This record gives sequence, structure tokens and C-alpha cells, in this order.
Amino acid sequence: MEERTRVPFPEASDVWEARKRIAPYIRRTPLVFSHRLSEISGAEVYLKLENLQEVGAFKIRGAANRVLSLSEEERRRGVTTYSTGNHAQAVACISGRLGVRAVVCVSDRVPKAKLDAIRRWGAELRIAGSSQDDAEAECRRLSAAEGLVIVDPFDDPFVIAGQGTIGLELLEDLPDVDILLVPVSGGGLVSGIALAVKANRPGVPIVGLSMERGAVMHASLLAGRPVTLPESDTLADSLLGGIGAENRYTFELVKRHVERIVLLPEAAIARGMAFMLRRQGMAVEGAAATGPGALLSGAVSLPEGSKAAVVITGNNVDPDAFLKAVKSVRDE
Amino acid sequence: MEERTRVPFPEASDVWEARKRIAPYIRRTPLVFSHRLSEISGAEVYLKLENLQEVGAFKIRGAANRVLSLSEEERRRGVTTYSTGNHAQAVACISGRLGVRAVVCVSDRVPKAKLDAIRRWGAELRIAGSSQDDAEAECRRLSAAEGLVIVDPFDDPFVIAGQGTIGLELLEDLPDVDILLVPVSGGGLVSGIALAVKANRPGVPIVGLSMERGAVMHASLLAGRPVTLPESDTLADSLLGGIGAENRYTFELVKRHVERIVLLPEAAIARGMAFMLRRQGMAVEGAAATGPGALLSGAVSLPEGSKAAVVITGNNVDPDAFLKAVKSVRDE
Repeated sequence: MEERTRVPFPEASDVWEARKRIAPYIRRTPLVFSHRLSEISGAEVYLKLENLQEVGAFKIRGAANRVLSLSEEERRRGVTTYSTGNHAQAVACISGRLGVRAVVCVSDRVPKAKLDAIRRWGAELRIAGSSQDDAEAECRRLSAAEGLVIVDPFDDPFVIAGQGTIGLELLEDLPDVDILLVPVSGGGLVSGIALAVKANRPGVPIVGLSMERGAVMHASLLAGRPVTLPESDTLADSLLGGIGAENRYTFELVKRHVERIVLLPEAAIARGMAFMLRRQGMAVEGAAATGPGALLSGAVSLPEGSKAAVVITGNNVDPDAFLKAVKSVRDE
Repeated sequence: MEERTRVPFPEASDVWEARKRIAPYIRRTPLVFSHRLSEISGAEVYLKLENLQEVGAFKIRGAANRVLSLSEEERRRGVTTYSTGNHAQAVACISGRLGVRAVVCVSDRVPKAKLDAIRRWGAELRIAGSSQDDAEAECRRLSAAEGLVIVDPFDDPFVIAGQGTIGLELLEDLPDVDILLVPVSGGGLVSGIALAVKANRPGVPIVGLSMERGAVMHASLLAGRPVTLPESDTLADSLLGGIGAENRYTFELVKRHVERIVLLPEAAIARGMAFMLRRQGMAVEGAAATGPGALLSGAVSLPEGSKAAVVITGNNVDPDAFLKAVKSVRDE
């Protein structure tokens, strides 16, 4: 087992430091008013479009903050990670831009399209075994053998603080926001946003969003400790995955700061995807459609006249699955 | 006596709202590293140059936030104030830009140069009596008779929140700041900055700076209630003036958030003015020179290697008094 250095819990000040550190490497995304969601919910609804990041997802914020915080020596050695989705692309992107070696460990079951996306940013691929667990084991082996720093996809103070910069941008654009809707998987995104927003607006509730099947953070909160769940097929596939049996930060931060997590049926997620395409002209992944889906389906209702910000997380979606999901929904 | 509507105590969220509201009307001022002050103090010292605001002082932030927060009806009636310094110019400036009537009440002892500066922004002058008290009485009479809204120079939640936007800019530019040095008069500036900074960095100490003679906030804190002091001649004349026997906000906020107030002798203030001219090429008022003066004279010492931000408040200074003060100081 790797040796784990204890780092203090991240705080709002870490988010401010992240903001300055990553500013040259990320896009400051727009917060746009949605007429349709406002009409339906009786509130003022705004969408934070993180799908417009260069890598197509908010993940670049946390990855950039982690890689930019490496020591000179660590930078020379390089980094490694074992996610195959937005996080792997984000680590590849920032490492490529900084000339840092990045090795992404994947199993032989990862589709070619995903491998190409990671390679495009200049990262090395290491194919090992045939499961995500095998890929993670290879990643830890590489770290031990070659001194590569593991960039954790969510349970890392720098990653959390990086994602939290979204919260500071929300405060800038909508300082009187009343409620936030944020997708939850490992909890890095919602933890970071909570740190930034609650320091300045302690009373603003944060509603987490997950899919009905395989919502590990939700199940862990109910159990009072990190649990595992079998993975199921879901449109919100980037919200799948465990939170780690030895979760150090996000389980506690979500417990402390997130008012409730709402679980959405697949049909609501599909409605969110269709809405984003038809009304916003944007193809987004299922995870990113949970906010619109929650409002369209009535799974989340907003206080009359309140101002709500909904985080649209990314656009890393398989085109065929996307079209199939959208076709299943009538225009509304 | 005017009727006073109770407004809740200002909070960090009000500073964020102010930031968005006033952004189009203020300059985002630079935070510049000072080699000389860093060398002398053994710390990293940065200067927040509010003297670069269009009206030459930070006061535009609070005045803009107050005037921009008026109701439509209040805007049609207009505003009034009774300060003769930076605040009056700031109220005149923002009102002029928004097409809001502004009446500045002054006594017949205010020098022509100050009257011209106020008139330049398009404000009306109302000359009444021969003391500042007479001017204030006229201001209150006008407010009662014509419905003009009094823009208080410091003890107002909107004004405090407006000045606090400096704190958010400091967090952006120097998120790991260790200590702040802020001039204190009525306490609006330091209260606002404290609200913004302490929400995000609760442990950062704030040192208030005043002159030895006539430091009313300092004397009030010692007495445990607002007191008055006779006004004396000081280079930091814009730090003179009372805090109001019925102070509602700043006395409490300063008590809560400011670690200590350091009183400076005139010689230290003059040294600060000479320093700002010779090393930064800037003519600033005595109040604005208190930070550099405190470090040059050793009245404030900084923790070794810490990062310190010093607020340079404004440049509203009489040229003759300025030259005399600067000449009294040997080059250093």
C-alpha cells in the first residue's frame, strides 16, 4: 500500500489559491439564463457551462491545480492516473501543456475513442489487465516503481480546491444565488464548490444530483461510511465509480455541506439531454444533464422566485448513446 | 432627528453583490510589490493602489454601491452628503455618471480647491454656516425637506460592502496573504475589507493605522463606546472626523475584526509620503502613507517572510502641504 501523507482538509483559502494558479490554463465559463427552465420551475435558473472547457469538462480545474502544485522534482518525474473519462483527458491536457510526463493506466476494455482522446493530448497509455481495478493496480505500481505522482480523480485537496473555483465564479456572476444544483459522483466537484460558496454565503443550500442506479456517495452517506455498489448501465456513466474505501476528504465534506442528494431515473436524465440539445444547442453527457433533468421532471422543485445555479459538467458522451437518448424524448 | 430604518449588518455576501454592481464604474486597481518595503521589513510587501481610482481614492467603491442601490424613486429625488473630501467627490462622480442629482453641503470655510473638485463632477454645492456641524445640519434638513437620500461616508452597509470589494481583489491577487495593513478613520474601509477577507481567510490579522492625534475609532474602542476628540492638525487629515455618537455598524465591525490599531507620529506619516513619491513616483495623501510610514518607522513589524498587503487609500492632498512634508524627510 502506498504511503499516504496527511494533508490538511481543504478550505476556502485553498480555492482562492487555486483560482490564481490555474487562471492561465482554464476557460472562465459563462453562466447563462435559461428561459425554459425558469418558466417550468417558477425560479430564475442559470446554467454554468463547464462543458465549454477546452477538454469538455470541469475536470481540467482540479487536474491543473494538482499538476501546477507539484514540486520541481515531482514535475521532472511526471504523473499518472487511472481514470478513463474526463479526468484522464484533463490530466493529459495540463501535463502536455506543461511538458510533464503523464501516464494514463487503462484496461484493455476501454474503447478506442477514449484512448484516442487521451493520446491526443500527448499522454502515454499503459494498458494493463481487463478491469478498472487492474488499471488502478498498474497505476499504483508505476507510482511506486518510477516515482510518478498519482493524480487522484476527486479525493485530493488540490483537486477539490481546483473544482471549487467554479464556486467563486458563481459568486461573481450571481452573488445573490439562492440554491445550487451540482452533480455528485466522487464528490470532488460539489465539495470544492461548497467550500467556496459556503464561506461567503453560509445559508445557500446545495442539492447534489446522481442517478438512481449506482449512486455510491448517496449510499455511503446513508450507511455512514464509504460503501461499494455494483455498476449499472446509466446515461450518467461519468457519475459511476466508487468513492474509495479509505476516502479522506470528499465523504466528510459532502456530509458536512450538501443538504441532500436527489437520485434521478434514467428518463429524467434523457429529458435533460434532449433539453440541452434542443434549447441550448449543446450535446452534453448524461451527468451534465442531471440538473435540467431534475427540474424538467419535477424531481427537484425550487422556491418560487429564487435564483438557482445549475452546473453543467461536461460533454464527454458517446454520439450513438447520445442520439438514442435524445430520440427517446418528446419535444417539450 | 431623521427616521432610521434598520438594515441588517453587512456580510461577505453583500460584498460579492457590491462587486458585481459597481464593476462597470470603478477601476480594478493593481497590487504592486515593493522591493524597498520588503527589504526593510523582512517580509513580502505589496501595495494596493487605490489612489489610482478615477476620483483618486477608494471612496468611489462605497459611494457607487450606495447610489446604484437606490430605488427608482430615490434616484429621481437624488442624494446629499456633507463630507468635503474624497467621499464628496466620489458621491459627485457616481451621481454625475448616473444622472442623479447630488447636493454636497459644506461650510463657508472649505477651501476653493475642494469646492472646485466637487463641482467638476457636476454636483451642486450648498454652503451653510461656518462649521462641519452646520454643513451636516443643512444636509439633514435637505434630506427631510426634499427627500434627498443621505449618502453616509462610512456607517452604511452599502458603503461598507462597496469598500469591501478591495478585499476580494486582494484575495484574487495574493490569495496567500498573511497580514493586512489598512488605514482607519470612520472604519468603513477596514470593516468592508475584513468582511470579505475573514470569510475566506479567518486567520489573517488586520492591523488598523491611524495618526497619533485625533484617532477617534481607536479612542472609542478603548472607551468601549463612540467618543469624540478635538481635531488636531495632521498630515493624515482625511483620517480625522468622528465615528458618530449613534454609530450603527463600523464600531462593532472594527471591534470584532481588527486585531489592533497602531497610532503613528507625524514624522512616520511624512516618511511614508516621501517614500511613495521617491520610490513609487506617486503623490499620496497622508492617510495613504500610513502603511509605508508604519513599516519604515518600525511602528509595525511583520513576521519574517510573511506576505503583507498595504492599502494606499488616496491622493487628495494639498500640493503645498505635500511638498513641505516630503522636504522634511531625508532620502532613505
